[in-house]
Amino acid sequence: MTTEIVIKEKLKLRKPILIEGLPGVGNVGRVSAGYLVNELKMKKFAELYSTDFLPLVILHESLTHMLKCEFYYYRGKDNDFIVLTGDTQSANSRGHYDLCKTVLEFAKSIGVSAIITLGGFVEGKMVEKPKVIGAVNKIALIPKYEKYEIDFKDHSVGTILGTTGLLVGLAERYDIDALCLMGQTMGYPMITDPKAADSVLHILKNMFSLDIDLTKIHKIVDEMEEKLKKTQEAYDKMAKDAKTNDDVKYIG
Amino acid sequence: MTTEIVIKEKLKLRKPILIEGLPGVGNVGRVSAGYLVNELKMKKFAELYSTDFLPLVILHESLTHMLKCEFYYYRGKDNDFIVLTGDTQSANSRGHYDLCKTVLEFAKSIGVSAIITLGGFVEGKMVEKPKVIGAVNKIALIPKYEKYEIDFKDHSVGTILGTTGLLVGLAERYDIDALCLMGQTMGYPMITDPKAADSVLHILKNMFSLDIDLTKIHKIVDEMEEKLKKTQEAYDKMAKDAKTNDDVKYIG
Amino acid sequence: MTTEIVIKEKLKLRKPILIEGLPGVGNVGRVSAGYLVNELKMKKFAELYSTDFLPLVILHESLTHMLKCEFYYYRGKDNDFIVLTGDTQSANSRGHYDLCKTVLEFAKSIGVSAIITLGGFVEGKMVEKPKVIGAVNKIALIPKYEKYEIDFKDHSVGTILGTTGLLVGLAERYDIDALCLMGQTMGYPMITDPKAADSVLHILKNMFSLDIDLTKIHKIVDEMEEKLKKTQEAYDKMAKDAKTNDDVKYIG
Amino acid sequence: MTTEIVIKEKLKLRKPILIEGLPGVGNVGRVSAGYLVNELKMKKFAELYSTDFLPLVILHESLTHMLKCEFYYYRGKDNDFIVLTGDTQSANSRGHYDLCKTVLEFAKSIGVSAIITLGGFVEGKMVEKPKVIGAVNKIALIPKYEKYEIDFKDHSVGTILGTTGLLVGLAERYDIDALCLMGQTMGYPMITDPKAADSVLHILKNMFSLDIDLTKIHKIVDEMEEKLKKTQEAYDKMAKDAKTNDDVKYIG
Repeated sequence: MTTEIVIKEKLKLRKPILIEGLPGVGNVGRVSAGYLVNELKMKKFAELYSTDFLPLVILHESLTHMLKCEFYYYRGKDNDFIVLTGDTQSANSRGHYDLCKTVLEFAKSIGVSAIITLGGFVEGKMVEKPKVIGAVNKIALIPKYEKYEIDFKDHSVGTILGTTGLLVGLAERYDIDALCLMGQTMGYPMITDPKAADSVLHILKNMFSLDIDLTKIHKIVDEMEEKLKKTQEAYDKMAKDAKTNDDVKYIG
Repeated sequence: MTTEIVIKEKLKLRKPILIEGLPGVGNVGRVSAGYLVNELKMKKFAELYSTDFLPLVILHESLTHMLKCEFYYYRGKDNDFIVLTGDTQSANSRGHYDLCKTVLEFAKSIGVSAIITLGGFVEGKMVEKPKVIGAVNKIALIPKYEKYEIDFKDHSVGTILGTTGLLVGLAERYDIDALCLMGQTMGYPMITDPKAADSVLHILKNMFSLDIDLTKIHKIVDEMEEKLKKTQEAYDKMAKDAKTNDDVKYIG
Repeated sequence: MTTEIVIKEKLKLRKPILIEGLPGVGNVGRVSAGYLVNELKMKKFAELYSTDFLPLVILHESLTHMLKCEFYYYRGKDNDFIVLTGDTQSANSRGHYDLCKTVLEFAKSIGVSAIITLGGFVEGKMVEKPKVIGAVNKIALIPKYEKYEIDFKDHSVGTILGTTGLLVGLAERYDIDALCLMGQTMGYPMITDPKAADSVLHILKNMFSLDIDLTKIHKIVDEMEEKLKKTQEAYDKMAKDAKTNDDVKYIG
Repeated sequence: MTTEIVIKEKLKLRKPILIEGLPGVGNVGRVSAGYLVNELKMKKFAELYSTDFLPLVILHESLTHMLKCEFYYYRGKDNDFIVLTGDTQSANSRGHYDLCKTVLEFAKSIGVSAIITLGGFVEGKMVEKPKVIGAVNKIALIPKYEKYEIDFKDHSVGTILGTTGLLVGLAERYDIDALCLMGQTMGYPMITDPKAADSVLHILKNMFSLDIDLTKIHKIVDEMEEKLKKTQEAYDKMAKDAKTNDDVKYIG
């Protein structure tokens, strides 16, 4: 395995629900997950590293930061919640599988009862009021979720790339129910779409009666935007510099 | 090994013949294999997954589907038959070897007596009445098969890429006879060629006296086409999005 | 592991400080490290090989040379010093992680108390008097180092690619303090920048009261330049010939 | 290890010398090695396969052929000789290292006393009377070999890519003397240069008093050319079809 989870705090969690949101189209997953972490004042209890991440460190305020994902928790009324968010997804194909399997094994080991992954659904055009498209790993889950304004109507065949998709697809083998929520978004790569994130967050708020204030989303997104923009510049640079991991480039 | 075969039903099969047909040039293999599965009402008994497939799930009618290949069986008169078909081949070079070795070990373990792989033979031009080109892994097999209108004449040196070729080439080490049947086809990548598939199916029907109705091929191909087209769009999108598995792309 | 360290001489070192300088932007790291090795008449005690280096040998004066990195040592007053320099960094992403982990395990095993990596900081324009930008793996290290004219002011979010960055980022897990010194440089790939190296060397000289003569840097850089230029031509050729390690190219 | 050597005949060889010639620039290595095999009527005793070769089979006269390299032997007067030749080199970087290490371990195990690799030396222009450039893995070998009209003069820094270079470079660790002979050649990729091969063969003939007739080289090269051309077409097609092993292509 090339993925490693470093546990910072050992926890007993009650039927935890794992919510995943990583960088991706419109950054819908990452913004939504980050908003939950902030609003619910969640605490970090584990970190995830992978040798399939890009071979670099982030430099910020004179400190180096390994690329990583982070697990946060929040003690809810009926369930506890775990949020998985972070800097990056895997930089190569097999790394996605490895990361998802490692996350699912970890999830299983701490008793995760359901997984919800958050992402964007590319529409290719501006969407005034973004709907949230749902996908599940078992048909029996649709009745349970469809009351929350999730669009389960038949969409044309599509694909869900990366962690957001694979985590749901692979969850079946670990006997974990999984739901993917995708906010409709224009689909420019790496341009943050707070509206789509807002749609996704409204559904999560209703579904779990979460005590989060969504009026602040635009203000908070503006702040996150600033930081994300810088990270995105770094990514763009990386993508340009390192194009593939097979290139001969030494920087630094 | 990065390939995994999940057995759904344990079977005793009589001298089974394994017929492989996966996506490829003209989709000749996949269409032919799919037609056999439909016409013979074959039953699935195993699934194949690989971490060398693209890192995504197919979304269809609100359900996520891992990319996979499937093993079906049919009890014949003298032999039982296994069809291996599926969504995809490996997305990288070493994955092809791994997949083929895993399939051959599995085939050996269940007593497979012969392998027939189905594919397209690129002609680069329209072919009115496509012939079927044969290739074998032992010269002694030619007399056995040449009575079935398979073209074993000396063609210029060529290559057979991916599972269709490697399964035949590697079968020798597992002491399994193998035949590759390639229907002549224009060779546009990913455009389904039902005529070439029809030629291949005629040979299989004669060879094994299969009770299949080939008059429906065009109607059935029309229906498959619709679904394949959508999957092909997904593939094209994937190929464009993910170009190589080393790119930094997060979608979903 | 794909990286291998071959120890040529077993040593007892006193609280050694490991200084890394490999090829990269402006060759700042490599030139600085090479200058230290020359001026301090350091002795080689170990070599590092990796199957993630490019698949070739350097031909020089009728001798073949495997691509390698080298460890040199110098007995200082309060500390001993180790310099890690060499021909190349890893040619692919995962190889960088592997190399850095192997180096850190080795460093830990011989009691390395601190790591200093040397590199270039791309400014994208000519820099008359290059400053040296610092990055550390623990915030508590800044007061210790900031007296040495290292610029620890808040720079915009950036990334440090390859060994220079990862060695610092990963050092935390090995409980080793690490500092990265980056001389401001134009940033043309693979064009040696002796001025930036000079800035970096001044800081190292002051920090450790090293007995090195920096007046010779330009003369010595001129000589190194000649050899580096040839190696750079080889690299350019390699990069062109072998572009990625997945290409089909046989040369030689 | 991804490389596998299949021994067909167990042999006791007297101080065998291993001569390697694989496809490469001007096909100098492959043509020279093939010529030796023909002229000396050498017998095959082992085959080499790698999952780092391209994922395809060669189709020739209705038979599939796995890409492979082959070991031939010849009982000489003072030494026995082994020739390693074949269809291909590794299709990726790490595969080159793996193949060379596997060959060297095998060589060591059967008592190989010296290795000679054959290749082309790119001049970038037509060469009327090609010289043969030599490279060794130990400086002490030069006096032993320089009497044979091998050019050991100081050439500018260069690189020797792939098996031809790595086998020599890595041989040192196996304590095996190694010499690389490179015939000067124009350097068009994949265009066979019989003149350069002729130069290399003259040196081998003199060095080992081999009983080979070099007057036939042009005639024999003409015949080999025909076959090589077809294989080269296949390679070109492969290179175009499969560009990198990460592309999504299913052919056949």
